[in-house]
Amino acid sequence: MLPPVNLRPPFNITRTSHVRLNVADLAESRDFYVEILGLVVSDEDESTCYLRGLAEACHHSLVLQQSPDGGTCQRIGFRVFFDEDLDEAYRWFRERDLSAEWVELPHQGRTLHVSDPLGTPLELCAVMETRPRRHIDFLDHRGAHAQRLDHYQVLAADTYALAEFYGELGFRNSEYLEHGDHLLGAFMYRKGTCLDLAIVTGQGPRLHHFAYTVSESHDIFTACDLAGLKGYGAGVERGPGRHGPGGMLFTYLRDPDGHRVEVFNSHYQTIDVEIEPVRWDAAAVSTNARWGLPALAQWYFEASPFADTPLKEPAEPQHPMTLERFLAERTAR
Amino acid sequence: MLPPVNLRPPFNITRTSHVRLNVADLAESRDFYVEILGLVVSDEDESTCYLRGLAEACHHSLVLQQSPDGGTCQRIGFRVFFDEDLDEAYRWFRERDLSAEWVELPHQGRTLHVSDPLGTPLELCAVMETRPRRHIDFLDHRGAHAQRLDHYQVLAADTYALAEFYGELGFRNSEYLEHGDHLLGAFMYRKGTCLDLAIVTGQGPRLHHFAYTVSESHDIFTACDLAGLKGYGAGVERGPGRHGPGGMLFTYLRDPDGHRVEVFNSHYQTIDVEIEPVRWDAAAVSTNARWGLPALAQWYFEASPFADTPLKEPAEPQHPMTLERFLAERTAR
Amino acid sequence: MLPPVNLRPPFNITRTSHVRLNVADLAESRDFYVEILGLVVSDEDESTCYLRGLAEACHHSLVLQQSPDGGTCQRIGFRVFFDEDLDEAYRWFRERDLSAEWVELPHQGRTLHVSDPLGTPLELCAVMETRPRRHIDFLDHRGAHAQRLDHYQVLAADTYALAEFYGELGFRNSEYLEHGDHLLGAFMYRKGTCLDLAIVTGQGPRLHHFAYTVSESHDIFTACDLAGLKGYGAGVERGPGRHGPGGMLFTYLRDPDGHRVEVFNSHYQTIDVEIEPVRWDAAAVSTNARWGLPALAQWYFEASPFADTPLKEPAEPQHPMTLERFLAERTAR
Amino acid sequence: MLPPVNLRPPFNITRTSHVRLNVADLAESRDFYVEILGLVVSDEDESTCYLRGLAEACHHSLVLQQSPDGGTCQRIGFRVFFDEDLDEAYRWFRERDLSAEWVELPHQGRTLHVSDPLGTPLELCAVMETRPRRHIDFLDHRGAHAQRLDHYQVLAADTYALAEFYGELGFRNSEYLEHGDHLLGAFMYRKGTCLDLAIVTGQGPRLHHFAYTVSESHDIFTACDLAGLKGYGAGVERGPGRHGPGGMLFTYLRDPDGHRVEVFNSHYQTIDVEIEPVRWDAAAVSTNARWGLPALAQWYFEASPFADTPLKEPAEPQHPMTLERFLAERTAR
Repeated sequence: MLPPVNLRPPFNITRTSHVRLNVADLAESRDFYVEILGLVVSDEDESTCYLRGLAEACHHSLVLQQSPDGGTCQRIGFRVFFDEDLDEAYRWFRERDLSAEWVELPHQGRTLHVSDPLGTPLELCAVMETRPRRHIDFLDHRGAHAQRLDHYQVLAADTYALAEFYGELGFRNSEYLEHGDHLLGAFMYRKGTCLDLAIVTGQGPRLHHFAYTVSESHDIFTACDLAGLKGYGAGVERGPGRHGPGGMLFTYLRDPDGHRVEVFNSHYQTIDVEIEPVRWDAAAVSTNARWGLPALAQWYFEASPFADTPLKEPAEPQHPMTLERFLAERTAR
Repeated sequence: MLPPVNLRPPFNITRTSHVRLNVADLAESRDFYVEILGLVVSDEDESTCYLRGLAEACHHSLVLQQSPDGGTCQRIGFRVFFDEDLDEAYRWFRERDLSAEWVELPHQGRTLHVSDPLGTPLELCAVMETRPRRHIDFLDHRGAHAQRLDHYQVLAADTYALAEFYGELGFRNSEYLEHGDHLLGAFMYRKGTCLDLAIVTGQGPRLHHFAYTVSESHDIFTACDLAGLKGYGAGVERGPGRHGPGGMLFTYLRDPDGHRVEVFNSHYQTIDVEIEPVRWDAAAVSTNARWGLPALAQWYFEASPFADTPLKEPAEPQHPMTLERFLAERTAR
Repeated sequence: MLPPVNLRPPFNITRTSHVRLNVADLAESRDFYVEILGLVVSDEDESTCYLRGLAEACHHSLVLQQSPDGGTCQRIGFRVFFDEDLDEAYRWFRERDLSAEWVELPHQGRTLHVSDPLGTPLELCAVMETRPRRHIDFLDHRGAHAQRLDHYQVLAADTYALAEFYGELGFRNSEYLEHGDHLLGAFMYRKGTCLDLAIVTGQGPRLHHFAYTVSESHDIFTACDLAGLKGYGAGVERGPGRHGPGGMLFTYLRDPDGHRVEVFNSHYQTIDVEIEPVRWDAAAVSTNARWGLPALAQWYFEASPFADTPLKEPAEPQHPMTLERFLAERTAR
Repeated sequence: MLPPVNLRPPFNITRTSHVRLNVADLAESRDFYVEILGLVVSDEDESTCYLRGLAEACHHSLVLQQSPDGGTCQRIGFRVFFDEDLDEAYRWFRERDLSAEWVELPHQGRTLHVSDPLGTPLELCAVMETRPRRHIDFLDHRGAHAQRLDHYQVLAADTYALAEFYGELGFRNSEYLEHGDHLLGAFMYRKGTCLDLAIVTGQGPRLHHFAYTVSESHDIFTACDLAGLKGYGAGVERGPGRHGPGGMLFTYLRDPDGHRVEVFNSHYQTIDVEIEPVRWDAAAVSTNARWGLPALAQWYFEASPFADTPLKEPAEPQHPMTLERFLAERTAR
């Protein structure tokens, strides 16, 4: 059972916007995202690098911050439609005794820092500086031609509770994953595609991955090939494969700090109110659904903690069908 | 100069929904869209065939109607978000002395027929019957794997006036085409991509084309190849090529009645309020922008009339750089 | 060290031609190769089905034979250039006390059955019936659009000895795999691409796999997707991935009898005498070379025996880096 | 009717090898082939640049020579298998009173300059220096990822006579083009694919184009896009389209001197003696065969002269269905 969705939310979050990562070696991380994913640098200084996908007109979708806490995530960002949506959001979070603070940050408009009930640090803004889209400047393209940031996946100790929270903010479900009537995964969106925020049960809150789109399935191979050539071949953690939920082609890479980034080819459009979310049974989705081996245990259990955010275990430990377990059970037969 | 856009429109049109075409030979047209584009038949009877793209969950995005008026278009359809948006729309059109009538139509909810000030017949509804998306049922795929209806292009005697009208309804501009300060093309959207409705100056209102997305650029070749094999090779009217505005790869086909359908690979995302529309100078866009020959004169001047809708010429005749003129001028040098 | 290659061989083998497989259920195997790989049926009767790739003009590259010995391979076939090359071959094998017998078989010319010194049963012919190539008959295409049979890989107890034998017949080396100076894999060709016959050390002679080419990398995903939809998802045994030797994209499928077929995108051209074979160190090639997990143990050790052909173990047991061992060693750290 | 083919030729030409072009501005031409096609520079000095495709191990397939005669072609090169094939070739040409001279040229072995009876200057060699193939060095890739030189097309005053000459040298026909029983095009090969040398009737001898292969159809769009960005958009002379003969996807570009280069995705394999050449009727092939507009007149009539080589007109003037004529005849109706 999915929690209810509020189709008239108190303020208008429009889409996944940008993620702020702490990295141990800024130059190395910049190189990873420019040379392997193909992101474009919008601005940078000694401690911070702002990157965007080729088709993005807004200043940054990925912010890399040099930090002794490399491997942690600072915040995941969402956009709101109007500047006054920020005021509504401020009020709404304060009324619920959730943290909400105004901050000023370079290259973006008025910014609000809030946290959801599980402690996930969020960043909301309405506008950014703009830059020209680079998707047809083919001479300058590098890497796997990543087009735009699409979504996040977070691990949460209580998927139902968190999906209920985001449902109240207007996040709707494209697909979801249950074991019996126990909700294990909620694939939620605001922007009219399958996803802005995937919530999956696990020790959390942690950032499981963020995902960039590519235009051609061939680019997924390119991401793997370039990862291999740049010395990150062992970090091609899963795929290339085909998702069950959503049906997209994907691969998952681990960056120099272990942050996980997905490269996938996005398709389907949501938007309409009458379309029912697609239900997946947990047993069926622990692998690639229709072909391929299950993911490594590390894909299920490793994720980027949020800086200064306490972790909580789910009520029941998770037992996904990992590659390790799959092989052990097969040998046992 | 672009007309103003109302970011708080009186009712919420969400997206391009479905087009209703009159066709002279239903079986032949059905075959064209199933075997060449790869659309799926949702329902059909002796006089009507309802089709949808592989990734569409709603009942129809293309309705073919057997008719002695083959080659005309009945209506272009848009979706509204809530059912009550229809009531708001009814009131809004009536207040402006624009036609607005409730109708009942199979496979979709309450439906409103309205016309814009230039007479373009529109159809609005909030819900449809749903069907399973077929985008990963690869065994049943045919044709060029068209994923979903994306947008319309209409010819209008007065682009500015029509863009002003749709701007009031919340349609925003991704890109536009001017000759000096004369608006010749407005590429407008509601759904967060580049386009739902392109308005281009010409004898109108007429439907210049409707467009389906594909997932891989290779599918654009497939559309052409299958058109050739099915006897519609002469109807591969333009492309494959790369658009200037938008930057997508495309091809245009003419169907058995001469209706024009575009197959293209859609990418970029709009949504944010701070992004300025991209301006193109008319001189530069009359060809494929960066490479390829100009389009045939017929691509500029032929279009599907709307049934029972009077036509009006633009104030000034259009002189696009057609292929015919391009070759004549080149020879003359 | 590679054995010598005779550039003026006693008779002219030109290319990999066709493989004859015993299958337990002809209808099921036919369905696998038609619906998943996309092969075309040239002829069939109750016990035999002759298939070819879309771009093949010769009658068959795959012959499926209904048999109680499903899972065994009858013979791998090569073409010779002239009919008189068969006579030379007959003489040559007889002079070396290797079996050589004339046989008559449907749809192909005069045919010679011979065996190499390790007992691999070979079939040689100079001509076949021809059929139209189907590579641009897009309306009839199914499956992953497999274009043509490219090569075999056999397991042999003594790679050096077998490579020496085929070297005398004019098979040249594009790449090879050594552990120190011990030859573990010889990638040999006659036709001017990388491969006609790969020889790898293992219990043999057995057919490890045969391989069909595809034109677009996307077809490799299609093969996997269709295998999944047809119930063979667990048989997507390895990949999609990128080969070290050769550098091609690939996936390996197991058919209903467990025969292994590779689908890959072929590129590079050989031909010239001055090009040195590329050497790979065994340690480096036991995985996908630059990215991805190692292959399952079954990929290394399972293969199709040849009917009525005794097996021999290699002098030293093989210890490739299997996925199972890789995970065990990682856990142990 | 095709002239006879000698399957036991006097010496063994194995494949298309390299083309030597005179260019007016070496830096500009180098930039064209590196940035648009994606060729790799093997060596260069002030007056000469040696390039090869990504998958080529031999030193050069394209030699650009700074020259006041920019726009002319010096020679087209073929490889022979053994060094002694050169001696056989020398004797053979001399016996027929055709020019044959030994020359020494950098980066390649013993070299023979000969001319065919129509005066086409040929260059034969058996070996070249080698370089590592670069096809999987993805980090260094540029342009459209051209893989290897595949074939030439020459215009000849007498197609039959020239096809007869090359037939005697073992060139076989994959497909051919006739008007009635008049041979207008012979598509000939030595290397086991469709083509090494296409001969088409026209003022000659001239080099109509040379062709590089790409691995993915998407690369064909990339070639066009990069040509557009580099200022050569008007030189995207034909395509992207699908060939009738061969069935490949293609586009034709004109380089800074007007030399024409084709980029195409090569597939089908020839080799076997029993396969009959495919006949095309001239009327049917003057366009893209199944879809798309005819080629410009310049595509038919413009070509690179060979340096110091007199031109001859065909016995009958050619009247292909050019785009110009196609449009004129359509208007006339």
